[in-house]
Amino acid sequence: MNILEIGAQLLASQGFSRLLETKLTRFDQQGAQLELTIRPELTQQHGFVHGGVISYLADNALTYAGGGAMGSDALTSEYKINFIRPAIGERLIARAHAIHAGRTQAVCRCDVFVVKDGEEKLCATAHGTINKLPPKDSTP
Amino acid sequence: MNILEIGAQLLASQGFSRLLETKLTRFDQQGAQLELTIRPELTQQHGFVHGGVISYLADNALTYAGGGAMGSDALTSEYKINFIRPAIGERLIARAHAIHAGRTQAVCRCDVFVVKDGEEKLCATAHGTINKLPPKDSTP
Amino acid sequence: MNILEIGAQLLASQGFSRLLETKLTRFDQQGAQLELTIRPELTQQHGFVHGGVISYLADNALTYAGGGAMGSDALTSEYKINFIRPAIGERLIARAHAIHAGRTQAVCRCDVFVVKDGEEKLCATAHGTINKLPPKDSTP
Amino acid sequence: MNILEIGAQLLASQGFSRLLETKLTRFDQQGAQLELTIRPELTQQHGFVHGGVISYLADNALTYAGGGAMGSDALTSEYKINFIRPAIGERLIARAHAIHAGRTQAVCRCDVFVVKDGEEKLCATAHGTINKLPPKDSTP
Repeated sequence: MNILEIGAQLLASQGFSRLLETKLTRFDQQGAQLELTIRPELTQQHGFVHGGVISYLADNALTYAGGGAMGSDALTSEYKINFIRPAIGERLIARAHAIHAGRTQAVCRCDVFVVKDGEEKLCATAHGTINKLPPKDSTP
Repeated sequence: MNILEIGAQLLASQGFSRLLETKLTRFDQQGAQLELTIRPELTQQHGFVHGGVISYLADNALTYAGGGAMGSDALTSEYKINFIRPAIGERLIARAHAIHAGRTQAVCRCDVFVVKDGEEKLCATAHGTINKLPPKDSTP
Repeated sequence: MNILEIGAQLLASQGFSRLLETKLTRFDQQGAQLELTIRPELTQQHGFVHGGVISYLADNALTYAGGGAMGSDALTSEYKINFIRPAIGERLIARAHAIHAGRTQAVCRCDVFVVKDGEEKLCATAHGTINKLPPKDSTP
Repeated sequence: MNILEIGAQLLASQGFSRLLETKLTRFDQQGAQLELTIRPELTQQHGFVHGGVISYLADNALTYAGGGAMGSDALTSEYKINFIRPAIGERLIARAHAIHAGRTQAVCRCDVFVVKDGEEKLCATAHGTINKLPPKDSTP
């Protein structure tokens, strides 16, 4: 199994990502890309994608980027997100990469784009700290 | 209709909040409280509540707190969240309030708790900027 | 020497804090308080205290709060700050405390107040992650 | 006067930037670059540049980038900074640019580098919201 398949398997093991039908479309040491089809159950009161959905996608992409860069399972410790424009369209794409990867932490950045009529527009930007997790068999 | 009912109606108009079955359990000028029953479709790969769910709840509670303090519809402009401990339990509670409310922006703070066996534990803390939205009939 | 004196000694060993003449006026396990006399060389182009000074004070208070809560030397890993109103007055006071202190990290919060004519007003709020440092004699 | 000279004049009108002897070495619509010579009075207890100095430089560069992109005087509303490695060396360089500039706000990003023996290393990264200020003659 290559790293993209491993990542996709991990995503499929997240109940919440199954609920939202998120897809991992790129994943390597250089970064990660997650995608989501926009549909009515992901919106807020004005019909835009809910900020919570955009946050989820950014958070998850940051974790992938950090995990990929450190070569391990990982967890987002903290992040900050700025919403730039309302997300209206067919699809969300989150692209994240590590700015710096240390032994136990990575600092990662993520841009979230909305695709409408085939055109991508930046709708949010995030950055945060990703913590390395010890390998599974070393935890009780 | 009182302000809690108005807030609950607004929540019910968010497709994403209906999907997650979020409840608004307190809402006034002093702050807002949102709650969520934890279930398998809200988890990540380790069985904890997904950080994206916690982010969503914090983001939404921040918006309510800001809107309540400014007496208007509102939108989260940006926020930062720190995850403090894994969320394992029956229920999430997000409590938010405005630290400062100006004419067009409020700065709000939110703590997210997980309830397990009746005990509340802090699992995340967030703060951010909430922008006031013009009244509905003044927008085209 | 009590903990306040130890903290004051540490502050005096920071060249930058000597330059700014910062004072540590409270420091214990429950939190830290730093103060600064406002003067022309701390301002920006509008005559308000420079955001960088407020950031410095918040950053430093966060580190003290984290170090105090974990009982160790500490370093700010990251933080976010929101400026709430222009700081005009005689004095800045930053008050910080740990929201959560773990084995290696603490999440801390800081409010910065400006004192004008004896009245305190909130001018900024911050929160961030503080990392524990190993004891001095264990580092090479 | 070109925009770099206008920016340098503005910097010279900041008491705090004069105290720190900050230099504006690039400034246009595409971004801003600020530089600082490292010296003992800018350090913390371990001899590294104080996080408050790095914060100040990032904050100031973010404001320049936002102001440059919006073509106006500007103020940092909020930002977040992650410290990546201790800053030891001769010089700090902060490079900022706007990710998005709207009518009243810009979202900007800043990387801070330390230069040691001629080599640049990333020591911090920040992003935040910059608010446009009305032209001087329109304020009382």
